[in-house]
Amino acid sequence: MSYASYLSYWVLWNGPPQLDHNWPFTHIQFDLKWPGSYSNLPEPCVVLQLDRKSLTPLYTQIVAEIRRMITGGTLKVGDRLPANRELAKTLGVNRNTVTTAYAELTAQGLITSRVGSGTYISAIPQATSSPLKTHEKASSPMSWESLLSVQSRDSWLQEMSSLDSTRDAISLSLALPSADLFPLDEFRRCVDTVLRRQGRVLLQLGTTSGYPPLQEYIAGQLALSGVCVSPDEVLITNGCQQSLDLIRQILVGPADEVAVENPTYPGALSVFCSSNSKYLSVPVDSHGIDLNVLEDVLSQRRPKLIYVVPSFHNPTGATMDAASRLRLIGIAERYRVPIVEDDIYRELRYDGPDVSPVKALDEQGLVIYISSFSKVGFPGLRVGWIAAPRIVIDHLNRAKQRCDLHASLLAQAAIYEFARRGLLAKHLKRVKKAYSERRDAMLYSLQKHFPDESSWSQPDGGMSVWVRLPDSLSSRQLLIQAVESGVTFISGDNFYSSSPQQNMMRLSFTMATPQAIEEAVKRLGTLMKARLVRIKKRRSQDRTDGLRALV
Amino acid sequence: MSYASYLSYWVLWNGPPQLDHNWPFTHIQFDLKWPGSYSNLPEPCVVLQLDRKSLTPLYTQIVAEIRRMITGGTLKVGDRLPANRELAKTLGVNRNTVTTAYAELTAQGLITSRVGSGTYISAIPQATSSPLKTHEKASSPMSWESLLSVQSRDSWLQEMSSLDSTRDAISLSLALPSADLFPLDEFRRCVDTVLRRQGRVLLQLGTTSGYPPLQEYIAGQLALSGVCVSPDEVLITNGCQQSLDLIRQILVGPADEVAVENPTYPGALSVFCSSNSKYLSVPVDSHGIDLNVLEDVLSQRRPKLIYVVPSFHNPTGATMDAASRLRLIGIAERYRVPIVEDDIYRELRYDGPDVSPVKALDEQGLVIYISSFSKVGFPGLRVGWIAAPRIVIDHLNRAKQRCDLHASLLAQAAIYEFARRGLLAKHLKRVKKAYSERRDAMLYSLQKHFPDESSWSQPDGGMSVWVRLPDSLSSRQLLIQAVESGVTFISGDNFYSSSPQQNMMRLSFTMATPQAIEEAVKRLGTLMKARLVRIKKRRSQDRTDGLRALV
Repeated sequence: MSYASYLSYWVLWNGPPQLDHNWPFTHIQFDLKWPGSYSNLPEPCVVLQLDRKSLTPLYTQIVAEIRRMITGGTLKVGDRLPANRELAKTLGVNRNTVTTAYAELTAQGLITSRVGSGTYISAIPQATSSPLKTHEKASSPMSWESLLSVQSRDSWLQEMSSLDSTRDAISLSLALPSADLFPLDEFRRCVDTVLRRQGRVLLQLGTTSGYPPLQEYIAGQLALSGVCVSPDEVLITNGCQQSLDLIRQILVGPADEVAVENPTYPGALSVFCSSNSKYLSVPVDSHGIDLNVLEDVLSQRRPKLIYVVPSFHNPTGATMDAASRLRLIGIAERYRVPIVEDDIYRELRYDGPDVSPVKALDEQGLVIYISSFSKVGFPGLRVGWIAAPRIVIDHLNRAKQRCDLHASLLAQAAIYEFARRGLLAKHLKRVKKAYSERRDAMLYSLQKHFPDESSWSQPDGGMSVWVRLPDSLSSRQLLIQAVESGVTFISGDNFYSSSPQQNMMRLSFTMATPQAIEEAVKRLGTLMKARLVRIKKRRSQDRTDGLRALV
Repeated sequence: MSYASYLSYWVLWNGPPQLDHNWPFTHIQFDLKWPGSYSNLPEPCVVLQLDRKSLTPLYTQIVAEIRRMITGGTLKVGDRLPANRELAKTLGVNRNTVTTAYAELTAQGLITSRVGSGTYISAIPQATSSPLKTHEKASSPMSWESLLSVQSRDSWLQEMSSLDSTRDAISLSLALPSADLFPLDEFRRCVDTVLRRQGRVLLQLGTTSGYPPLQEYIAGQLALSGVCVSPDEVLITNGCQQSLDLIRQILVGPADEVAVENPTYPGALSVFCSSNSKYLSVPVDSHGIDLNVLEDVLSQRRPKLIYVVPSFHNPTGATMDAASRLRLIGIAERYRVPIVEDDIYRELRYDGPDVSPVKALDEQGLVIYISSFSKVGFPGLRVGWIAAPRIVIDHLNRAKQRCDLHASLLAQAAIYEFARRGLLAKHLKRVKKAYSERRDAMLYSLQKHFPDESSWSQPDGGMSVWVRLPDSLSSRQLLIQAVESGVTFISGDNFYSSSPQQNMMRLSFTMATPQAIEEAVKRLGTLMKARLVRIKKRRSQDRTDGLRALV
């Protein structure tokens, strides 16, 4: 067995050891499928270390590791590398990640592929000077690696979505509307109408701030929830992700700090860490962001903004009550720190009375309010918005112009027409009923099938339930088994800006029927219980061994 | 006459003096409409200085200037400020710019508006400490100014577009397709078909890389022009503006340099200067980028990329021939500097044989190729793309995910269907015929109506003609008169990364009919000729005065 073939079995990862058995290495935090028993493991070991918390993309890490192993002599010319599908599966990374790594190694001339045979080590890396420093005519392919700047966390969305490409799996992973409930005919007629009525305007270049009737509609809707802004204090964006990115551009410089809830939406983390800014992590409990901690943080640090999701927080489902919102804005006013209020789930309330947005309490104009049509309407359209004081909108407008001139006018006009006709309100009523039933099915099934040591949130709205597994279980380990049993969810560690909890999971309930939800939760419960039994057995075995040793 | 009222008459600007008369101030470069004769001007002067080359937004400059005048005692409590429409017109800035400045001054408590009466100075600025450093509860509105980071040049698109809001003007300004030629019914049927066939997919969240059939279609089209990429080496974006911004994100860090053609597309300048990166300006002649200068630059500096528009360059209309393209790629290979090839006008060729894209010559994978459907199809859709080596696309993909997850699927599928059915090719054929006639009408009218001392490009394609006015004329001055006579164009200085020429103008010929083009060019010619006569008269007067003084 060549060293190279070990690559496909060993997944080593830069976290604290979390496995519940006697594994001979440190830095292991994954479910391994070692073909033999652990004691058979030959020495010395080939170690492919991936650090998922690093800003370095995973493929770059793989390239660097394989280079290191060739340079160090662990891998030799002629050694065969595992197939990329195989390596990807074992490393728990997207197949594209490995493909890209192999492509880069090929470009560097270190490996070659032979059709029908496999990928082999073909050369030993030379001690290289930077290609940009050599002026001679180079005939080799461009080596991009040294030029590309590292931008952000790995492709969280891509990785999350890739779970759902599994055929026939029941998806509890992405917090998205159910496409089965889309009122397609009604929407299609709206598109047809706006193209008939205004085709020449909608297909021509528009203004950066947005389609004016939509800006007006949004200002009108916001007024209903107590938020008073004029239409020109509304900027239409390509959804909340872009809203966050634009806000970062105008407010957060390199090395600046931002206060975020911990856990929070991974897309926000990917935006805010991209400019080397740092998170000040503030915990979230069942009442929302911990205001005592926030106040402590602000008394010592000056973040450029506080990012909060006060209604049906993602992933915890927590909603801040009116008193907490008042206290939050008081704190922000006292320290003069802007609040970015992400209210994307607000309208998805199934129980209890509405709570006004924080923005409705904002007398001094320090709240930047963002939302979108992606959760209540259609995420594929990519239409969201920002409501903020005029001066902030003016800066955002310029940033948006630089980024992409404006959002697709067809999408803006279509969702406007859909809303104007009252179809959005009708659709919302229908999905709220369905999602509420699905949430109930999930809460009921959790009670019925999950082990006693687990616990979970009881959200009044939103799209997900936040589950704490028994302490001895890891949600990433569970996920690997779950995917094999045809269920997907998101492991909780994706949501943390610091101190990730290994035993948290987010179960979204919007995309599956109540029956499918019960089936999925049942399968998860069965896997967890089996695992708990195995752990208990081994512990009792260890105790017996310990007692024997004492004898 | 209070000092404040002078504000609306004086436009002072940080360039070299360019006026052709004896003006008592320096730093003036604009057409002034002073109500009286120049000699009546009282001393001392109120000077509202705007520096259009500064990164500080114009409204911020206005705020700072007015604050300065209040602090300095030039403006006193109770003085009336000019109406914002009035000040905007005289300063030659967008009305929103002044509105924002006044809003900020109001927020700072320095001015108040009385309905039906006007805007007045209401307080003198206090010496302030940074609001973030004071911990006391503040009850005043948030002062955003100190928090907002300055991002880019002023709103070039907004300012350019605002010209065209003039009623009934003949637009020679924006280089956009003619909306009158949009085949609306055919497009509408395509949208209807894709929504019927795939509505649930198109309205749901998609993948960042794009709508797969569109990626495949683009790869197929590129193959026809000799560019070989696989569909997964194509990333769909929201148009070329976003493509440029994404490329900047992965390749250009703060303080990095980029080589750009001078003049070039202002949207590219706004992208590349946003990260404090610097331009290395390389001149463009009628054969495209000056390769001798480029080589000189690269022998001394290491830009992160070379941005070029090799076909129907904006604004000059120049197209590089095959030999120059080969030499360009040779230079880039030698110095290992990536090329960003913006080929957005490529398909709009009216005469002469096609020239292959630079990307088609790219054996080492150092060209990033961008284009879009905005010039040949519909800019309002916001769909463009990037074709590049896999590793580059992988980085761009992650940047795009962070920016806005993905481009609107409805827009992507609609343009795909339109192209798949052959309707895009049919539309392209039709618009090429129309634009070719319009270009001919423009070239003919220029010959007929423009003064002898002017000259212009003779583009084989694209959307604009680049005109050099007689040396004594300023295109900005001409623009002000032109707008009054119902004609708009873009003053050439907008396109320069350095050393702006004051006597260049870009006339686009796609949006007006041949008859309207002739009328517009005639009006411009008349204005220029009248101006030349006045200048000649004054010079001869000056000469006479000089002779008298000698007597």
